[in-house]
Amino acid sequence: MTKRLGRSTVAFGNPPCIRANACVAGKKEGEGPLGNSFDIVNNDTSFGEKSWEKAESRMQELVLAKALSKAALSPPDVDMIFAGDLLNQCIGSAFALKDAEIPYFGLYGACSTMAEGLILASAAVDGGFANRAAAMTSSHFCSAERQYRMPLEYGSQRTPTAQWTVTGAGCAIVTAEDLGGAYVTHACVGQIVDAGVKDAANMGAAMAPAAYRTITDILDQSGSAPEDFDLIVTGDLGFFGGELLREMFELDGVELLNHTDCGEMIFDRESQDVHAGGSGCGCSASVFCGEILNSMRAGRLARVLFAGTGALMSPVSTNQGSSIPCIAHAVIVSSTR
Amino acid sequence: MTKRLGRSTVAFGNPPCIRANACVAGKKEGEGPLGNSFDIVNNDTSFGEKSWEKAESRMQELVLAKALSKAALSPPDVDMIFAGDLLNQCIGSAFALKDAEIPYFGLYGACSTMAEGLILASAAVDGGFANRAAAMTSSHFCSAERQYRMPLEYGSQRTPTAQWTVTGAGCAIVTAEDLGGAYVTHACVGQIVDAGVKDAANMGAAMAPAAYRTITDILDQSGSAPEDFDLIVTGDLGFFGGELLREMFELDGVELLNHTDCGEMIFDRESQDVHAGGSGCGCSASVFCGEILNSMRAGRLARVLFAGTGALMSPVSTNQGSSIPCIAHAVIVSSTR
Repeated sequence: MTKRLGRSTVAFGNPPCIRANACVAGKKEGEGPLGNSFDIVNNDTSFGEKSWEKAESRMQELVLAKALSKAALSPPDVDMIFAGDLLNQCIGSAFALKDAEIPYFGLYGACSTMAEGLILASAAVDGGFANRAAAMTSSHFCSAERQYRMPLEYGSQRTPTAQWTVTGAGCAIVTAEDLGGAYVTHACVGQIVDAGVKDAANMGAAMAPAAYRTITDILDQSGSAPEDFDLIVTGDLGFFGGELLREMFELDGVELLNHTDCGEMIFDRESQDVHAGGSGCGCSASVFCGEILNSMRAGRLARVLFAGTGALMSPVSTNQGSSIPCIAHAVIVSSTR
Repeated sequence: MTKRLGRSTVAFGNPPCIRANACVAGKKEGEGPLGNSFDIVNNDTSFGEKSWEKAESRMQELVLAKALSKAALSPPDVDMIFAGDLLNQCIGSAFALKDAEIPYFGLYGACSTMAEGLILASAAVDGGFANRAAAMTSSHFCSAERQYRMPLEYGSQRTPTAQWTVTGAGCAIVTAEDLGGAYVTHACVGQIVDAGVKDAANMGAAMAPAAYRTITDILDQSGSAPEDFDLIVTGDLGFFGGELLREMFELDGVELLNHTDCGEMIFDRESQDVHAGGSGCGCSASVFCGEILNSMRAGRLARVLFAGTGALMSPVSTNQGSSIPCIAHAVIVSSTR
C-alpha cells in the first residue's frame, strides 16, 4: 500500500523496481554529449517511415521492444502501459501500441509525461493494480515543429529563449519484483501553476515556477533537503528555465548546486545551435531512461530527484491570448530499497 | 489492495465509493430525453465565454464545483484528479484546473476518458495512493467541429453514420469512505483494437470491436454473464456502433438485451437530427455521471457494466490514410459493496 505524506506526496510501501529502461534518439541527439547513452540512434531521423508522425510512433515501438528485451520480458508479461506524447490526440503512442495487445492508459502531460507515467506505473504496482507496468513517451522535432510552429520548409527564425524539441523516446518498466538497480520510493503529483507567461517561445520561463512548486512540495512533504540527492534533474526547462529555477531557490537561500535539466544535458550549447536547449516529452524520457538510470545502475548516482515539467497550452490557447498553465510531476529514485 | 483477475481485469479489495457525481450540458442535450438528469444546462451553449474552447473549460469548472458541492467537499479535500478531453493538448481540462490547486493527472483516452479516469481514480483509492480522487471530462460540439471537421459557419453536410459531439461534461468523486450509493467493484483496462476501419465519419463501426473485446474480457475474467447486470452501457458507439456491438455478441449466441449506449440515450433519434447519435468525451461522462449513477442512487439500477470507448485517431492520421485504433475501458459499478 502506498502511504500519503501530504497534499501531493506519497511514499511507496514497497518501492517498485525499475526493471529496465531504454531510449531511442535521432541524429542530432546522437551527436550530442549523451550520444553514447542511447540504445538506438537513427541517422536520418525518419526511422524508415514516410511521415514524421509515423517516425515518432516507430520510435515508441522500438523503445518498447528494447526495454522489453533488456527486461527479458515479452508484451504479455506487462500488465499495463502508461503512454502519451505531444501530437494532437496522442497518435504517437496510440499507433505505436495498436498491435501490442498491452492494456493501455493514454496520458497527456506534455513534457512531464515520462514523470507522470512513472508515477502512475509505480502507484499501480505498489497498490496491486499491476505486477509490471511500463511508462513510455516520445517527441520528434519534425512532427512537433509542423504541429506547433511552422513547417520545416518555411525555415522560420527562432528566438533565443526557444527550445529545440528532442527527437527521442524513452521507456521504463516498473515491477513489484526486487531486481536491484533503481527503485521509485516517493512521488509528488503536480498541481497546475500558471505564472502568467504568454510567450510560447519561452517555455522555460513558463514552466520553472511549476518545477519550483513541485520540488518544494516533495522536499517538504518527504522531509528531504536538496543535499540528500546526488542529482536533482528537471526536464525540460532548458538553459533559461533551468537558470530561473536555480534563481527561485536562491531567493529562498537555497543553492541548488546539484541541479541540472535534461534540456541542458542533451545538447551542446556551443556547437549544436539549439538556443535554449532541449524540450519535448522525448527529452526528459530519453535522458532519464538513458543517462540517469544507467548512471544509477553503474553506481555513479545513488539518489535522484527527477521532476518532469509540462506546458499545458496549445497553439489555439496561445492564439486566444491565454497564458500557459504548467505542471511538474516528481519522483525520488534510489538505488536501494 | 487491488486483486488481478486476469490479463486486463482487476477486482478492487475495498471497492471505492462514488461519493458524488455531477453533469453539465448544452442546450441541445437539455432538450433531449435526458434533459432532466443534467445538473446544469446552459441555454446558449457558450457558458458565458468568448470562445468555444473557453466554454468547454468553463463546463469542467462548473461540473467540478457541482460535484464537490454535492459531496460537501472543497478542492483541498480531493487528493488528485484525472481529467482529459478531445481538444488538442487537452486544453479543456488544463484551463479548467489551472487555479484549482488539485494534483492533476492529464489523460487522453478520447471518448473513453470518463471510464479511464474512473478506473485510475478507483485504483488510486484502493491502493492507498489517494483517499479521494476525481475523474472528469468534457466535450463541446462547437470546439470539436472546428478542430476535427469544419468550422460551423461552413455548414458542411454530415453522413448518416456521423455522430454528433455532445456538449457536456461529467465528474465523479471516488472515495475510500463507505457512504453508500455506488461502488466500483471491478475494472478492465482496454487494449487497442484496430479493425481496419478508415472512415472517420463512422466511429461507431471503428469502436464496436474494441467495446466487444473489453466487455468480453471483463465478463470472462470476472466470471460474470451479461444477465448479471441490470444494464450494460457503452459510450459512445451511437446507433450504428451500438447495433454492431449487439450483432457481434449475437454471432457468439449472446443476446445483449440489457445493452444500450450513451450515444443512443442522450438524443432523440427522430426529432433531434443527430444522425448516428451522440459522441465525444462529454457524452458518456454526462450520461454516466447523470442518468446512470442517479438511477443507481434511486434504486432503479443495482449493477451496471459501463464501457467507455475511444477512437484514438487524429485528423492527421486520417489524412495520412491510417486506420482508426480504438480502445474501450470498462468498470463494474454496484449499489452494494
